[in-house]
Amino acid sequence: MKLVRFRNRAGVPAAGIVVDDGIVEIGLHLPSAPLDTPRLIADWPQWSSRLAALADMAPDHAIGAVELLTPSPEPEKILCLGLNYRDHAEEVGLPLPEAQLWFSKTNNTLSAHARPIMQPLVSQQLDHEAELVVVIGKTCRHVAREAVDDVIFGYAVGHDVSVRDCQMATSQFLLGKCFDGHAPVGPWIVTADEFRPAAQRIRCIVNGEVRQDSNIGNMVFGIYAMIEHISRFMTLKPGDLVFTGTPAGVGMGAKPPRWLLPGDRVRIEIEGIGSIENHVVPEAELM
Amino acid sequence: MKLVRFRNRAGVPAAGIVVDDGIVEIGLHLPSAPLDTPRLIADWPQWSSRLAALADMAPDHAIGAVELLTPSPEPEKILCLGLNYRDHAEEVGLPLPEAQLWFSKTNNTLSAHARPIMQPLVSQQLDHEAELVVVIGKTCRHVAREAVDDVIFGYAVGHDVSVRDCQMATSQFLLGKCFDGHAPVGPWIVTADEFRPAAQRIRCIVNGEVRQDSNIGNMVFGIYAMIEHISRFMTLKPGDLVFTGTPAGVGMGAKPPRWLLPGDRVRIEIEGIGSIENHVVPEAELM
Repeated sequence: MKLVRFRNRAGVPAAGIVVDDGIVEIGLHLPSAPLDTPRLIADWPQWSSRLAALADMAPDHAIGAVELLTPSPEPEKILCLGLNYRDHAEEVGLPLPEAQLWFSKTNNTLSAHARPIMQPLVSQQLDHEAELVVVIGKTCRHVAREAVDDVIFGYAVGHDVSVRDCQMATSQFLLGKCFDGHAPVGPWIVTADEFRPAAQRIRCIVNGEVRQDSNIGNMVFGIYAMIEHISRFMTLKPGDLVFTGTPAGVGMGAKPPRWLLPGDRVRIEIEGIGSIENHVVPEAELM
Repeated sequence: MKLVRFRNRAGVPAAGIVVDDGIVEIGLHLPSAPLDTPRLIADWPQWSSRLAALADMAPDHAIGAVELLTPSPEPEKILCLGLNYRDHAEEVGLPLPEAQLWFSKTNNTLSAHARPIMQPLVSQQLDHEAELVVVIGKTCRHVAREAVDDVIFGYAVGHDVSVRDCQMATSQFLLGKCFDGHAPVGPWIVTADEFRPAAQRIRCIVNGEVRQDSNIGNMVFGIYAMIEHISRFMTLKPGDLVFTGTPAGVGMGAKPPRWLLPGDRVRIEIEGIGSIENHVVPEAELM
């Protein structure tokens, strides 16, 4: 199932199911179900079979006619694994981490398909990172590798927009990773029963030119190892987002570096999930 | 004014005003006011004068009779400045940062006065960090130094509990800073009209022994410089928490290091705000 969050005709965030090129709005057919995605993710076992029945209905909206919203808008945490593709570590000249290298993004970064990516006033070094995002489905801690499947709700396409000079100005990545809107996620969440991470293609395409082209089988640490590891440190919650790292081809890795510029259209796509596209706008135009 | 969040007689989170040793429960006297603190902080200009009038009333609860809750429970962000006291940088053998060194804690860390501090299964290197916490009051971005006072809601006592081996295992501090409950904040928020950061004493006392004893005038980067800096990178929101660094005396700085142990009672106090005390409990006992 593809669970989508969008602005409905009343102008409020709503949850829907994607059917072909349309959306079945859950609240129109199951009025007792939670209207927005966070509650729906948390209460999924209670609703999943009734929602599956909706997938045969005629859509209420054409996908292209609605504004898509970020699918998990207020996660307790956005956790990100750095340097998790061998080719990406090589291109930026950093050794492969022996331990998993975790950092975080903050909730002001969350954005959606078609929303602008801000080129900040304080830097020109705007860069793209195509990533697979795991959406957590259950409250869990100390998850054994063989139990990881049980705590994953689904998967989405993510863009870990990065501002390199700000990221590298101190030992901590935070400030280069947390500009407003610098984490587009979408276009929807594919539930884990319909997407098994294996070697699906992941690409980043800027103005039609392929810049990153790899597959998620090239990760250094796999998703089982990631969830097992971070759940030793903290309780994971429904709706939490886990960015799983980016492959080679980022702008910082080119010689000379190629930064994103105003007007650029950046498309991230993952085979079996879908794609999101965002355009770069200078901060001054967004104020 | 001291704005406190606590569990009321109905067992639900409520906002109150501290008067002497008691709490005036806002919802009992101003039923139209927001019942919990996040909305109250966001809508403060609308409520502050009516709340000030409550400060003359007889308290509804004795402070010691209620469970205090973390005063800003779902901030969009918890931002933390590292190595911000000269003496602390020296004791841990790190050079003073030339740039502000920002990292973050996640919302699962938020805790309150009297809640346990978990000694995690995966590490014994549990350490204390007494900190002044700034609570943001307005949505703001690119805040000039002279406008910082306008965006600060108030101040609280904070404890940036840190697990050193996890913090230092990779270049990024995150996993050592984000264990569940590792950010006690409280006991309340003193509004900015009643607390002007100057050279107030800040201490950490473990089982009656003073371990950290400094004053907030010893910060490397002051609060104006901090807010000016981070607001260049992201929009700050009402309820956001800014941890401002810890002075010398942490367990990591002792030779040999002195880690917190089960049963330890850790008290953080800041002159003019108050104190919070938390006790260390092994993770196995909290499961």
